[in-house]
This record gives sequence, structure tokens and C-alpha cells, in this order.
Amino acid sequence: MNVELKENEEIEDLELNNWKIIQNKKEFCFGMDSVLLADFAKHIKQGSTVVDLGTGTGILGILLCGKSKLKKVIGVEVQENVADMARRSVDLNNLQDKFEVINEDVNNLDSVFKIQSVDIVITNPPYKKLNSGGINKNEAKLISRHEVKCMLDDVIRQSNYLLKNNGELYMVHRPERLVDICFYLRKYKLEPKNIRFVHSRKDSSPKLVLIKCVKASKPFLKVDKPLVIYDDENNYTDEILRIYGK
Amino acid sequence: MNVELKENEEIEDLELNNWKIIQNKKEFCFGMDSVLLADFAKHIKQGSTVVDLGTGTGILGILLCGKSKLKKVIGVEVQENVADMARRSVDLNNLQDKFEVINEDVNNLDSVFKIQSVDIVITNPPYKKLNSGGINKNEAKLISRHEVKCMLDDVIRQSNYLLKNNGELYMVHRPERLVDICFYLRKYKLEPKNIRFVHSRKDSSPKLVLIKCVKASKPFLKVDKPLVIYDDENNYTDEILRIYGK
Repeated sequence: MNVELKENEEIEDLELNNWKIIQNKKEFCFGMDSVLLADFAKHIKQGSTVVDLGTGTGILGILLCGKSKLKKVIGVEVQENVADMARRSVDLNNLQDKFEVINEDVNNLDSVFKIQSVDIVITNPPYKKLNSGGINKNEAKLISRHEVKCMLDDVIRQSNYLLKNNGELYMVHRPERLVDICFYLRKYKLEPKNIRFVHSRKDSSPKLVLIKCVKASKPFLKVDKPLVIYDDENNYTDEILRIYGK
Repeated sequence: MNVELKENEEIEDLELNNWKIIQNKKEFCFGMDSVLLADFAKHIKQGSTVVDLGTGTGILGILLCGKSKLKKVIGVEVQENVADMARRSVDLNNLQDKFEVINEDVNNLDSVFKIQSVDIVITNPPYKKLNSGGINKNEAKLISRHEVKCMLDDVIRQSNYLLKNNGELYMVHRPERLVDICFYLRKYKLEPKNIRFVHSRKDSSPKLVLIKCVKASKPFLKVDKPLVIYDDENNYTDEILRIYGK
């Protein structure tokens, strides 16, 4: 399907099923974090209904449609122009039956979804607290990166609202927020079961953390072996090449 | 100083200042976890007063007396025979001015210490929940390994009681308990600032986690690079050799 491109937008090849995604190079673009999260969540049960909180460009939903046989992905995106761009990426890949994008605030989901109606929630939420880090003057980047519209607490509370018991939450975030994350997950009965840290190099601090939670599950965390991006020769490691399908 | 050895006890050389420690080979012996924790805490400020909660054989206190110029270490040990053994190790190393062992329950510290009177708390607490893992029939091992006398919640609540504002808590534990740990630390205002995972090999899951908290500090966690014990040839890594002073 041909779709209209707006100013500053371009189409990027996802190198998966020939799928493509529209990005605005002046706004927030997807990065490796979404690709790693989609891979981390690749064992989601077939036939699951998945909600992507803060869907952005739609990258996570599109990757999941490629990696897992899902019933449906519903992406929730608060910014109207970003939701519109994600919808056009859905059209571009003919995924209208599989992936729906809703332009809504994460805090207003009670009117859209019944309580405990969803199998899986996946989210790549804003990483930074509003009062931290360099505030970005571009409004779309600001909303995507900082907790302007949606706090970590909100994302986790709403995940609890959406998920059935034994439903799963998958999240990527920054290690610096891990204590906040664990605290809110426990508070909202989403028990972390697997954590995996992502390191640029095997002897560097992690840059990202991938987290799988199960609703109302018993506490017992498995911290997986490190996911390392570059080897000693500055090439992608075998695992990164596998994730990228090389 | 010569000290009396009881049945099944033997003296082990700590390879630090010619110091030695008494251990009972049929009961709980110190392991690498205490050595790694003492190294993780080696930058404790000179002149600090340190409380070691669950001091066991006294290994942590003795190592700290060697690595840092402290005012005093006070070890708290609930088991009378174990506290007695730790005291004899203090005598063996002539550390009576530096390291005092108190035979007391961690939950009864209010009568021994004033509130917010301590600079540093260090602890290698029981790792396992009482209802998990193989229960050990030897009572001393059971109390040292399982949360019989002292729950994680208790250790952290009492650390909050003991510590001054900006005081530091150092802990070693199992990664499987990390969510519990973060939850209670946040609950008792002991903010984790540094976490380091200990891996047998660079591509294995971590076996231990080292945690530094600062009381009443702002949330911002630094996850350090992995601490790896064995290299690809099954030899100790350079960092482990440094920690052991080889």
C-alpha cells in the first residue's frame, strides 16, 4: 500500500518481512531498545492480545507482528501526529487486521479497555524523569523521552489494570531507574521474573535493562546473562547479529 | 595471642596482615561473598563506626579492619556459640580495640544502639526464605543460611534505625531476591546507589549481587560493570586476583 509522507518523514526498511516504518528524523526515532525488547518478548504465546503502551512510531507492534503469531496488537499513543504516523506505517505493511493504533492518554485507558482483559502489555516508556537530564525543546521528543504525559507509576498501574492474572508485562528501561521500577512493579502486583541487562561491551556498565513480569506471580527473579552488543573488535556480537536477522 | 579451639574448629589464614579466622568445618564457613563484599565496601570513610549485622565467624569485620581505617566495627550475632567463636578470632588477631562482637538478635538492637548513631552498616544476611530450598538440619547452618531468626525486612528496617542520614548500607545477596531487596530498601529510605552483579563467567547468570545504599539519598542507581570470577581458561580474573591480594 502506498501512503502519504509528511514533511521530514522518511521510510526505513525494518529488514523483517520486507516491512517498513515511517519515521520523522526531526522527532523521536526508534532505536535498538525497541528491537531488543521485541526479541526479549519473542516467546509470547500464540493468539495473545497485546497492548503496547506508548507505541510511538509503532516499531514494537510491527516487530511483534513479525516475530510472534499474535491475535492482535493495540498500540496506545498520546500524541496525535505520532499516532497518525504509526497508523500509516500499519497501512504501509498491510497490518490493519493485526495492529490497531489508538490515540489516547495512557491514563485514560479505563474507557477503552475492560479491566483484566489483556494477555500481554509491552512498553518502551519515557526513560527520564521530567526534572532530570537535558530537556528537549522539540515537543514530540520531549514527550517520548521524558515523563511529561506518562509517569513510570502510571504505566505500571495501568498495566496492572489491563492484564489478566498470569498476564505478562515486558519493558525496556534504563538501569538507573531499576529501583523505581522494582518498587512500582511490586506495588502493583506485577512480579519481575526475568531481568536482562544490555551492555555495550562485556566490561562496561549496562545501558539498558529488559524486564519480564508476570501478574500475581510468586517472587523469584532470574537475572539472565548479560546481553553484549559489541565484541572486543568493535563488531556486533553473534547474539546481536541473530536478533537483527543477519 | 593464643586462643582455645573447640571441637571441629580450625584456624584459616586470611592472607591479609597475617590475620586468621576460626571456623567450624561442620557449620557455616565464610565464602567468597564476604571477601567480595569487604572489597566492595573498601572506600568506607576513615574513622567510621561500622555495624556488621549477622557477623557469623567475624570474617567481614576482620577484613574491614584490614582494608579501611575504621573507628570501630561492632558485629551482631544471634547465635551464642558463633558469637563466641568470632570473639576468639578477634582475640587471635589482637583486634579487641577495633572489633567488638555482641551476642544479640538483630531485632533487639534498639536496646544496644541509639537511633541514627552509626555511619555504616554492612551485612551478609541469610539468603534464603525459610520456606525455600533444602532446609539444613544443622541448626547453625540453618540460621546462617535461612531467614529463621532474621528476615530481609528486619535487616533493612534495623539498618534504617541504626544509620545516620547519608549513612551507608553495604549488602551482598542473591540476585533472585533483588526485587524484595529494592522494595524494602525503598520502603525504609535506604536508596540503592550502586549495584554490582558477580558472575562465575562473563556469559553466565550472576550468582551474587553487591549493593551500596545511602540513607535518605535521591534515587539514581548506577549498575556497575559485571564482576567476573573466572576467565575463559578457568583461571581467576585479574580483578579477583587483586581482591585476594595475589
